[in-house]
Amino acid sequence: MKNTFGTSVSVTLFGESHGPAIGAVLDGMAPGIKIDEEYIASQMAKRRSVSALSTARHESDKVEILSGVFSGRTTGTPICLMIKNADTHSSDYAELRTAARPGHADYSGYCKYHGFGDYRGGGHFSGRLTAPIVAAGAIALSALKSKGILVGTHIKKCAGICDRDYLNYENDIKSLAEMDFAVLDQNAAEAMRAGILAAKGDGDSVGGVLETAVIGFPAGVGEPWFDTLEGVLSHALFSIPAVKGVEFGDGFAFADMRGSGANDPFRIRDGKVSTETNRNGGINGGISNGMPILFRCVVKPTPSIYKTQHTVDFVEMTDRDLLIKGRHDPAVVHRARVVADSVTALVLCDMLSQRYGTDFLGSAESVVKNAE
Amino acid sequence: MKNTFGTSVSVTLFGESHGPAIGAVLDGMAPGIKIDEEYIASQMAKRRSVSALSTARHESDKVEILSGVFSGRTTGTPICLMIKNADTHSSDYAELRTAARPGHADYSGYCKYHGFGDYRGGGHFSGRLTAPIVAAGAIALSALKSKGILVGTHIKKCAGICDRDYLNYENDIKSLAEMDFAVLDQNAAEAMRAGILAAKGDGDSVGGVLETAVIGFPAGVGEPWFDTLEGVLSHALFSIPAVKGVEFGDGFAFADMRGSGANDPFRIRDGKVSTETNRNGGINGGISNGMPILFRCVVKPTPSIYKTQHTVDFVEMTDRDLLIKGRHDPAVVHRARVVADSVTALVLCDMLSQRYGTDFLGSAESVVKNAE
Amino acid sequence: MKNTFGTSVSVTLFGESHGPAIGAVLDGMAPGIKIDEEYIASQMAKRRSVSALSTARHESDKVEILSGVFSGRTTGTPICLMIKNADTHSSDYAELRTAARPGHADYSGYCKYHGFGDYRGGGHFSGRLTAPIVAAGAIALSALKSKGILVGTHIKKCAGICDRDYLNYENDIKSLAEMDFAVLDQNAAEAMRAGILAAKGDGDSVGGVLETAVIGFPAGVGEPWFDTLEGVLSHALFSIPAVKGVEFGDGFAFADMRGSGANDPFRIRDGKVSTETNRNGGINGGISNGMPILFRCVVKPTPSIYKTQHTVDFVEMTDRDLLIKGRHDPAVVHRARVVADSVTALVLCDMLSQRYGTDFLGSAESVVKNAE
Amino acid sequence: MKNTFGTSVSVTLFGESHGPAIGAVLDGMAPGIKIDEEYIASQMAKRRSVSALSTARHESDKVEILSGVFSGRTTGTPICLMIKNADTHSSDYAELRTAARPGHADYSGYCKYHGFGDYRGGGHFSGRLTAPIVAAGAIALSALKSKGILVGTHIKKCAGICDRDYLNYENDIKSLAEMDFAVLDQNAAEAMRAGILAAKGDGDSVGGVLETAVIGFPAGVGEPWFDTLEGVLSHALFSIPAVKGVEFGDGFAFADMRGSGANDPFRIRDGKVSTETNRNGGINGGISNGMPILFRCVVKPTPSIYKTQHTVDFVEMTDRDLLIKGRHDPAVVHRARVVADSVTALVLCDMLSQRYGTDFLGSAESVVKNAE
Repeated sequence: MKNTFGTSVSVTLFGESHGPAIGAVLDGMAPGIKIDEEYIASQMAKRRSVSALSTARHESDKVEILSGVFSGRTTGTPICLMIKNADTHSSDYAELRTAARPGHADYSGYCKYHGFGDYRGGGHFSGRLTAPIVAAGAIALSALKSKGILVGTHIKKCAGICDRDYLNYENDIKSLAEMDFAVLDQNAAEAMRAGILAAKGDGDSVGGVLETAVIGFPAGVGEPWFDTLEGVLSHALFSIPAVKGVEFGDGFAFADMRGSGANDPFRIRDGKVSTETNRNGGINGGISNGMPILFRCVVKPTPSIYKTQHTVDFVEMTDRDLLIKGRHDPAVVHRARVVADSVTALVLCDMLSQRYGTDFLGSAESVVKNAE
Repeated sequence: MKNTFGTSVSVTLFGESHGPAIGAVLDGMAPGIKIDEEYIASQMAKRRSVSALSTARHESDKVEILSGVFSGRTTGTPICLMIKNADTHSSDYAELRTAARPGHADYSGYCKYHGFGDYRGGGHFSGRLTAPIVAAGAIALSALKSKGILVGTHIKKCAGICDRDYLNYENDIKSLAEMDFAVLDQNAAEAMRAGILAAKGDGDSVGGVLETAVIGFPAGVGEPWFDTLEGVLSHALFSIPAVKGVEFGDGFAFADMRGSGANDPFRIRDGKVSTETNRNGGINGGISNGMPILFRCVVKPTPSIYKTQHTVDFVEMTDRDLLIKGRHDPAVVHRARVVADSVTALVLCDMLSQRYGTDFLGSAESVVKNAE
Repeated sequence: MKNTFGTSVSVTLFGESHGPAIGAVLDGMAPGIKIDEEYIASQMAKRRSVSALSTARHESDKVEILSGVFSGRTTGTPICLMIKNADTHSSDYAELRTAARPGHADYSGYCKYHGFGDYRGGGHFSGRLTAPIVAAGAIALSALKSKGILVGTHIKKCAGICDRDYLNYENDIKSLAEMDFAVLDQNAAEAMRAGILAAKGDGDSVGGVLETAVIGFPAGVGEPWFDTLEGVLSHALFSIPAVKGVEFGDGFAFADMRGSGANDPFRIRDGKVSTETNRNGGINGGISNGMPILFRCVVKPTPSIYKTQHTVDFVEMTDRDLLIKGRHDPAVVHRARVVADSVTALVLCDMLSQRYGTDFLGSAESVVKNAE
Repeated sequence: MKNTFGTSVSVTLFGESHGPAIGAVLDGMAPGIKIDEEYIASQMAKRRSVSALSTARHESDKVEILSGVFSGRTTGTPICLMIKNADTHSSDYAELRTAARPGHADYSGYCKYHGFGDYRGGGHFSGRLTAPIVAAGAIALSALKSKGILVGTHIKKCAGICDRDYLNYENDIKSLAEMDFAVLDQNAAEAMRAGILAAKGDGDSVGGVLETAVIGFPAGVGEPWFDTLEGVLSHALFSIPAVKGVEFGDGFAFADMRGSGANDPFRIRDGKVSTETNRNGGINGGISNGMPILFRCVVKPTPSIYKTQHTVDFVEMTDRDLLIKGRHDPAVVHRARVVADSVTALVLCDMLSQRYGTDFLGSAESVVKNAE
């Protein structure tokens, strides 16, 4: 399976930036999950994030639900979420059929698809394909929330500025859900915005780090080998465009620790097994331990910049220079955070459905019987 | 599929640390790949790495090939690799049935398996299960080598000491293949060894960072979404015990860069498309671009240490202290590097077989006809 | 994966009979396959088969290609095929929310989806979902044809009347491609039509047997265990609504044979390995042997009939009678044959792509380079 | 995945007829299932079925459990079941490296594996590989039985003789469990045995039909498309060597029925939804309806016979004759029935684990806590 991810709950992506429509088929969600179209729209808005920090492309991104939802609830059958494309300036891209934009997939994609791909706006590689992931993710996030599982992502670092750590997971996650620019410390937020605009002023771009927390997730989910919780999450997270690294708990900082400082001592707290610290990010041996799941993704700077760059014509096999036309984001990290929430929620719905069965996230009660 | 990884080439793990045997079934390898049992044994020896730096358990780790190999070559059918267990001191572990070793999977595993698991020596979670991965990986590494694809891993960092970067990939990878302690700079190697022994002297342990390079890998392999090269590799790499982070190319350092410094400019070199730098680690948009694939895994310090730690009895639900008996490695990073090579090779064999067909890694020539 | 089938080439179905749209995502088709929209439309017409023999629902069944096709060829990325629904009389179905139509999935579906499913017109279970299978199958059939592989299905038996066997596979398959009512012997065709109309006159329905032949398929495709050619084909073929049996070669007639009559003797013919008979339907040990692949599917009589039937209200848990309103086909076997062609083609594209790589069915030549 | 079947519960086969060992890895079985080694041995004995009707090869078929079982119960981790090979006469087979036995996979396997396969005794294609399926199936059958689900297979037809239909499923299934030659009507059994011996006397072989029934299986399991209960079962059943057709309920007899006779009317019986007849074999729309699941597999006559047959040397590409040496079964249908039970049980365990979660078939109670 190529553009499909998941086992019990799966998502299949389709579409190109400048084709008729993009979308996703979300399959395996339990029957009976309430669909809140306003919430979906609000998540789409967070991804779009129209502001001085983002691209000028005005995408309406209206999600049409073609299947799998009936009377406001999931039916248990595949949910097709379609978003029509509009506001495309295809002529901007003619040059890109044979010129590789540095940092993009033009050349590697050419080696794979032999030039048959839709080169306009990145085609199937476009970051725009994250829109249906966010739409599907909104349904997954709702389903998790109904089981007391909350997911939140903040910008831990951007333009050299760091956000504070989570202090109270529940409060912080709820705050983030209301924010357009997901930074817990508002001073840090201002500094990051300034950093992004400074890069924009230079015709350049910046990267950053996203940190995701999940609370309320049960212990005992994941596999010891291969389908470790870390492995499955990272597999999906690397689909977020520009993500080039994923670390759990203390991550790369473990390299400089000793075991006595890296282990999380267990204690009984409030009648439950708990750990005094959470350096392992809620996962031991690939399996959740009941503590908050915590991980970070690094997002590289947007590769499209307003500067002439060295590149090649990969058909003529000649060196050339390239100034990429069109609209570029000086940063995507603030838009990517809702994608991180979405991907995380989709993976966790899958793992929970595998673990506890296909009814777990929905309602196993007969809706017809209850209505009477 | 739980303990199975891969689509066209797959590996299925089985076994417990103190059961009769551990092993792997490697399926989907092309017919006609030469099996070099000495090479397999040499890879096993690298993993075992008996020295002052490692555990005193004397595992012979003789690999028995139960199937899938005939007249010294792969048949194309499943290869079962079995390693009998010996030298087990099961009585050391009785206490661990209900006491969670901090940093280990005892408690999370209990939540998953409800106490039915074999608790002796970590059972199925034991790092010993990496032995069959290394055996299977040796076959994968041989197959790749026959196609001009080389894989090598060095210890980039350990005990606070950094190794030098790759200078000449081919030479460096070949040097690493001969080393027991895979560090390119011998001064750094000495300092790392000293650091590990210092930790050992304190009854403690250290972590580190592994850096893997792959050369000769063709451009155009990987998928734009979900089965990105980064995603599939990381999925498998997180199965290496103690790995808590994976980053490609410049990885987390991207967070502090601008796009103008993060992009790899393309140039034609020697008649081939090439990049001037390789900050993206040979992967653009999830697909190989023909440059060396480069990534790093962080390995947390060995959780088993010679110190009394806080923990719980998860059956009695009481706090307690624990001093773990038995033999502990003060570091595993030097042993894990051959596991990283192996996992990488297995994933790449799978991706190549999917891309180019099931005969690609072997010989599509009739062996019988050629013999006459 | 629930509504997805295939490994290297996969198809994901979505939609309900009375929802906004139905469709399929066809992923993994090689880049560069020519898309012939007229051919797709002609296959859709064969499935619709509007005549006295079929339902009066006038479905336009216009296939919209939302993605994965560019400049008239496949791009290599997912192809979303959408068909909008129209001409739905939803009020006909209100009663069916709690009354199980005998022979249908109303009750079994209720046990699975707890009443959240869209009950109108069978919802996701509707035979209408075969429309996107046919659309996807048309692309698969084109791809196979470009490699010299032809697929054809005739009605071997219907209303007690048998069609003749294949005489010349290539000619017969080409003839079938032109027919609306796919019977090789026109006398048999007339008798079948009369039988179907007789059943219709009685308010009843008939079943039949479809026989599919594939020629030009290479030897050496399939797996010895589990993913046998028979196993994978049958897995998919049972998705054709009303199919309750699949047999290969002589199938159930083998039960009354002896080995000396059941084996196909090998002979060299025209410089190629061939068999004198083809009782095994082109498959030995789960793997193609180069002879025509031959199998039959039995299609049960359409369960919707114009007769009052015993049933239950599965919510009230009471016995009741039911006369199903609406439009019923007196037979579906003549419409199902194009679904059989389609499912077969999709499975074979998948198996060929796994065997020979993802470029096999398309063009691995650069389209851009060739254009210049 | 090639030699692996299943999603939540999976089985991976390995081995060759004349290699060191054959076996299977059974993964995903819930923790806490009791392992009854005597029952496993009794199932192995049914498959071996040493008598005048079967091959003279004396296989001891002792199953060694290498992993996944601890203190007499499944741990939840992979169960490796190994059977060492013995009593092999490899010299019998030298001729078969280039001569295709009619009805066997020698030639199709050569096209796939290019002659690298182990040709002795059929290698990986050998019916001997059903031994580990039976071992794994015994565990699956035990797990199902503990949930009140019983599986039984009888020889419905052999040598032209038919067995009676099931009268009382529970009693009949329990009787079959005790039989070596699984025929319900003992007169039919005698006639079948005579027919088999008559074929043996002619140096020939016979085929037959197996009929499997499953009772106690819950309603609501299976998928509407692709992973229909019929599709998944048939996928696996075609791995039973010599099976060339699978039909559910009335199967191919549906071709001659009308809808009014083919539908199963629903009625409430004993407070449960039930059907008056069971022509659909317990499955509607791909999903179980709570009635007994009923299907039949046709088993072709054993292809190895004591007669000279036409064939080819596929390396020399010349016609030749062949008299296959060694020991041949005049029938395998009586041995295959325990394989049918096993395959069925493995598939159903997988589907139940997907539907109800990974603990469903075992014990979700802590074994440690309960012991105290």
